Amino acid sequence: MKIEEIGEFGLIGRIAAQFGGSVPAGWEGIGDDCAVIPWREGESLLVTTDLLVEGVHFLRDRISARELGAKALAVNLSDVAAMGGRPTATFLSLGLPAGAVGVEWCDAFFEGYRSFGIPLLGGDTTSSTTGIVINITVLGRAENRRIKRRSTARPGDRIAVTGPLGDSAAGLRVLLNALPPSPDTDELIRRHHRPRPHLAEGEWLGREPDVHALMDVSDGVASDLRHILRASAVGAAIDLPQIPVSALLQRTAAEQGWDARELALTGGEDYVLLLTVDPAGAEGVQRRFEAEFGRPLHWIGRCTDTGEPEIVYLDANGATCRNDYRGFNHF
Amino acid sequence: MKIEEIGEFGLIGRIAAQFGGSVPAGWEGIGDDCAVIPWREGESLLVTTDLLVEGVHFLRDRISARELGAKALAVNLSDVAAMGGRPTATFLSLGLPAGAVGVEWCDAFFEGYRSFGIPLLGGDTTSSTTGIVINITVLGRAENRRIKRRSTARPGDRIAVTGPLGDSAAGLRVLLNALPPSPDTDELIRRHHRPRPHLAEGEWLGREPDVHALMDVSDGVASDLRHILRASAVGAAIDLPQIPVSALLQRTAAEQGWDARELALTGGEDYVLLLTVDPAGAEGVQRRFEAEFGRPLHWIGRCTDTGEPEIVYLDANGATCRNDYRGFNHF
Repeated sequence: MKIEEIGEFGLIGRIAAQFGGSVPAGWEGIGDDCAVIPWREGESLLVTTDLLVEGVHFLRDRISARELGAKALAVNLSDVAAMGGRPTATFLSLGLPAGAVGVEWCDAFFEGYRSFGIPLLGGDTTSSTTGIVINITVLGRAENRRIKRRSTARPGDRIAVTGPLGDSAAGLRVLLNALPPSPDTDELIRRHHRPRPHLAEGEWLGREPDVHALMDVSDGVASDLRHILRASAVGAAIDLPQIPVSALLQRTAAEQGWDARELALTGGEDYVLLLTVDPAGAEGVQRRFEAEFGRPLHWIGRCTDTGEPEIVYLDANGATCRNDYRGFNHF
Repeated sequence: MKIEEIGEFGLIGRIAAQFGGSVPAGWEGIGDDCAVIPWREGESLLVTTDLLVEGVHFLRDRISARELGAKALAVNLSDVAAMGGRPTATFLSLGLPAGAVGVEWCDAFFEGYRSFGIPLLGGDTTSSTTGIVINITVLGRAENRRIKRRSTARPGDRIAVTGPLGDSAAGLRVLLNALPPSPDTDELIRRHHRPRPHLAEGEWLGREPDVHALMDVSDGVASDLRHILRASAVGAAIDLPQIPVSALLQRTAAEQGWDARELALTGGEDYVLLLTVDPAGAEGVQRRFEAEFGRPLHWIGRCTDTGEPEIVYLDANGATCRNDYRGFNHF
């Protein structure tokens, strides 16, 4: 059977089923943004790992070495933020094709990597047969009572994101379509190449008891939200007019004839946080978030008690749309 | 400047220099088989990571999926053994080219991976533009007083390995030279594809106070021993006639006109342990090792106080050989 037939998440499910029995009691393995391992009294270690392959995750001749070093780490740091934790150590494996890049490229890569100020404690370097290969593992820590998971959304929860969606996907489309340079297209490419992991936001949300479920947006809300729904056994209704899209993306989409909302829901690589909040506490969380970060939480819908992990999309009149949005699947 | 000009270890040194200042006090980063992070009272967390790339570390059409799953994990477990620790959790990133392998291949890969009984707690799956890419991170633990490092060899220490050298390199040569199948060549390939990490040996050696320095042999003793010498600021004299070579390798080398000793010293991927032992305690360690494991430690030389991290090779008469052996360098 081909892997394409079961898909990325089918493969992960198959792996999780084979290894589920071997996870020690009190440890949490496959199924969330990080694994959770008991650490000191009242505190846990968080662990996440991500693999980036040239030609799949980045184009070597379009992203600078400095941006690549920063982005490769950013996508991992985002996973720690998505549990309400704080990153403490990183490990890097780097596969470099013979003659492809020089020492200066490596120095710039590490300058980007260092920009977050998180220590690098080890790794591996090797040659590669073709493309550049980057694997990063990040360790983080969090107080147990502040760890947020995908499995804790409840029917009635309000759903929010911590920033606008779709700019990164639009930047990738600018690159793939080779659009001519302009201040707007340059800025979209910049947003694709320099995502900011929402570390401060994640740690802050971890301290809010009314925040129930939390994860980061890497494959697009349409795909990522399903993980929360499946893990929590709830459904969701998303208000399409509420999907936050930057003025930059709206303008570019109008010019290019793109569907900005589709990019926002399915494009991925936004690395904002996706959360569900107790409806009774939503207003307070919103007010405190805005006071802390100087910008709003974007409310995009609510969890429903259908029991099915399905998303219903509603238009401005609250009517169900026939559109179905699908996020990124690697196989 | 080309990376080939500074080499794999030049690159690692450059990275370590850039990140050295950011490592928290009491933590140990780049420079040993694992990073060491304080854990509970008197105990530390060990972390290691390794990247395997198709065409560099393995040939997909020659190694079975089951063997590959086991070997990819074995080389990481060996790093935990090399610190005197015990592995507790693993994380796997897997990049698979579209259409290259099926679900059955994955199932066999994970059957091999599971064979060590260490839990898989997370990872990443992605497509790959060309070859199969595997990155594994292993967490282990050890009592602080039992952790063995590369930096603790002393002049006068006796040097030993926990098993014969060169079989794995000979197996690779059988594959690359496409030698005809025979019981001997099949067995050498098997030793290349199914290394056994010396986990029990590593944990046992951790409990022996007279064992000073410890590491695993991945690039060949000629290269790996230099890491101990540099970290400990000692030299070494190696008795060439004492290098342990299996009867199988001796026989095959004689038939093929290979230099068995060169394969043993420079071939790598043996994944036995390399250690230095206080000379006053060496006999006791040897006796207890043999009682525990039913086979000898192989004494191959001693540490010297030259101060230079250089290896002198001695022949049967104790005379210096002009041979210089170099281990594997990835760039």
